[in-house]
Amino acid sequence: MQPLTSARLSNKMSTDRADLDTLLGETFLAHIAFADDEGLPRSMPTAVARWGERLLTHGSTGSRWLRMIGDGREVCVSLAQVDGLVVARTTFESSVHYRSATILGSFTPVGAGDKAAALEVLTDRLIPGRNAEVRASSAKELAATTIYSMDLDHWSVRISDGWPEDTDADVAGQAWAGVIRFGTPAYRIEAAPDLREGIEMPASVKAFV
Amino acid sequence: MQPLTSARLSNKMSTDRADLDTLLGETFLAHIAFADDEGLPRSMPTAVARWGERLLTHGSTGSRWLRMIGDGREVCVSLAQVDGLVVARTTFESSVHYRSATILGSFTPVGAGDKAAALEVLTDRLIPGRNAEVRASSAKELAATTIYSMDLDHWSVRISDGWPEDTDADVAGQAWAGVIRFGTPAYRIEAAPDLREGIEMPASVKAFV
Repeated sequence: MQPLTSARLSNKMSTDRADLDTLLGETFLAHIAFADDEGLPRSMPTAVARWGERLLTHGSTGSRWLRMIGDGREVCVSLAQVDGLVVARTTFESSVHYRSATILGSFTPVGAGDKAAALEVLTDRLIPGRNAEVRASSAKELAATTIYSMDLDHWSVRISDGWPEDTDADVAGQAWAGVIRFGTPAYRIEAAPDLREGIEMPASVKAFV
Repeated sequence: MQPLTSARLSNKMSTDRADLDTLLGETFLAHIAFADDEGLPRSMPTAVARWGERLLTHGSTGSRWLRMIGDGREVCVSLAQVDGLVVARTTFESSVHYRSATILGSFTPVGAGDKAAALEVLTDRLIPGRNAEVRASSAKELAATTIYSMDLDHWSVRISDGWPEDTDADVAGQAWAGVIRFGTPAYRIEAAPDLREGIEMPASVKAFV
């Protein structure tokens, strides 16, 4: 089985910015790697969103790891989407269809004047259109939220989407080969237990599912 | 919007080993963070599988990052599964249903005598039962594969699965609230273009989808 990333897959590197933007449009889940104050590797899963030429992430002002990466230290933002499984005729040639991105750089705090707009980008990244359906964030809420941005300058994308590459001898054998492609998940909407009667499901949620 | 991990969510920490095992059973996609030879943070997405009290990962012997983490340096293995979106009545209370795990330690190479068995675990982790349907790995294939294991000693799990926690004032307002739960993805099976006629889809693939 081939790993998601290996020397063998180096030919799958993409330098097409559109591939990065597409991936950032399909998955918001990133893992942000950094060295802690003792120099030990740490990684935190968190939501990210692209804002033009910048990558946004955010969290509570009380978050210890967010404060750590706010001092300008180097980070490595890693995103990966599994698109399917390559079922080869051998263990060795079996692999995974994936797209992954690595973004290097460092985060800087988004200034007070841009925070509301940045939060809108993050909110609408998860559920497009949702921001317009809720009240504006209060000054207190904005103050309790840390938002960082990072320039999208240093990045790489890898895409693996091929067929099994079995040897002629294995193709002549009895084993099946193909691909299991993953589509979008099934969605189930549940209203909150404390939802007041008469409030209908909003357009953003209907459009999402 | 709450981030996947923040100080506010510290009450969602689980120390139940069953939660770790469940997550490792549901997602094989990990991000392995480490410091490169210059001390800079790096993170690689890759497949992992639990083998009893150990975590396995593998790749080509030619993989540069795998060679790096094979020298016993500290790593941080991070896994996260998005289970849904919490649609709150405000941007501030909106969040994500997720389960995530952080596993700290270092990898050591799996010895030659255990490599075939470890590769079987990794193969069957992706498609249960597949290993028995294909020929055994050759000595050459095993020699070209690096397999590492890490003790599952130092780990933590976080689980976020609640309802929106809007203030009374917001609950009394006009905004909808609920959860969009994510189920398993849709699967589509495609036979390889070079599949010989008369070879039927195997039980492992049928069972998977």
